[in-house]
Amino acid sequence: MQTVFEINTRGPGLYEFTDQVRDWATATGLLTLFVQHTSASLLIQENADPEVRTDLQNYFSRLVPPTTDPTMAYLTHTYEGPDDMPAHIKASLLPTHLCIPIVDGRLALGTWQGIYLFEHRDRPHTRRVVASCT
Amino acid sequence: MQTVFEINTRGPGLYEFTDQVRDWATATGLLTLFVQHTSASLLIQENADPEVRTDLQNYFSRLVPPTTDPTMAYLTHTYEGPDDMPAHIKASLLPTHLCIPIVDGRLALGTWQGIYLFEHRDRPHTRRVVASCT
Amino acid sequence: MQTVFEINTRGPGLYEFTDQVRDWATATGLLTLFVQHTSASLLIQENADPEVRTDLQNYFSRLVPPTTDPTMAYLTHTYEGPDDMPAHIKASLLPTHLCIPIVDGRLALGTWQGIYLFEHRDRPHTRRVVASCT
Repeated sequence: MQTVFEINTRGPGLYEFTDQVRDWATATGLLTLFVQHTSASLLIQENADPEVRTDLQNYFSRLVPPTTDPTMAYLTHTYEGPDDMPAHIKASLLPTHLCIPIVDGRLALGTWQGIYLFEHRDRPHTRRVVASCT
Repeated sequence: MQTVFEINTRGPGLYEFTDQVRDWATATGLLTLFVQHTSASLLIQENADPEVRTDLQNYFSRLVPPTTDPTMAYLTHTYEGPDDMPAHIKASLLPTHLCIPIVDGRLALGTWQGIYLFEHRDRPHTRRVVASCT
Repeated sequence: MQTVFEINTRGPGLYEFTDQVRDWATATGLLTLFVQHTSASLLIQENADPEVRTDLQNYFSRLVPPTTDPTMAYLTHTYEGPDDMPAHIKASLLPTHLCIPIVDGRLALGTWQGIYLFEHRDRPHTRRVVASCT
């Protein structure tokens, strides 16, 4: 049982799609989500206070600043824009896939856990996430 | 086949539970462990020299210091304590789930691989880890 | 359905083995790759411009420098060489396993996604990656 979620992004940040996944995943077993890109990530994080998402984005944009930042001058893959190589690095530090058990037909997420697409590029994108149940 | 492991933590650090998982996972296929929290992680790391665990904890507490540290003054989600937002960041950098193949009824861990719950909060917690075999 | 890929490394960097995995994974379901080591990682990243791989390696060697670097003087697990404890840290920051859905008998990788073994140690190693389809 497989499907594809398409998520439209408008710049860096965390885009929640927990409800879409919850509605789809009704079987029992293991749900896997896989993002088919190398400059966006998937993440399970707190879904209560939106400040957490802002802080996460700000932390990662400081840990991996744009290539216009003097500390990143050693990077060579710069011709796709100052946000491109940092996006690949963030996509290496953060998950490309998630696995979530399904117990009694429901996603076994903790109380505060939401499912996010973490966009790392500046321009709008449509991101493809392949979902499968095994 | 699913179960829940409960792991009691007393402050930040790595808590091994390899033996509990090994005793439970006797089927063949794929074992998945999923932590139902956004301020604790799962990790496979060296199980030989305990210095490795101490060093890991120290590295991550420097990479993501408490919000009382001047370099973290830009963080806004601070009302749950100086260790809270850094815990969410560490939980983004480190795994929320693990998948380990089971070969001939045994976990296919390498010689030096142990399974850990990585606690990021200061106060004691009981952490829930959902285990499933598919 | 399980197998083991052996990958020979000659120092730090990203070693692609997408084709080997693609040739093996013909069933439908979920492919899992699991590296049986605590000083090497698996990674899905861009397979087009080799500069991306060089930049990734350089980023991680700055984020986690050798223990001979003064900023790493607090690390205690140093008797296996200056590249050993940093290798464990990198192996904590980067994936130990990957899950990739198989759709219609083909790995559902995005256009630019390749599968890599990321070696963190200086000396040559033979790295074991357990592959399973469920």
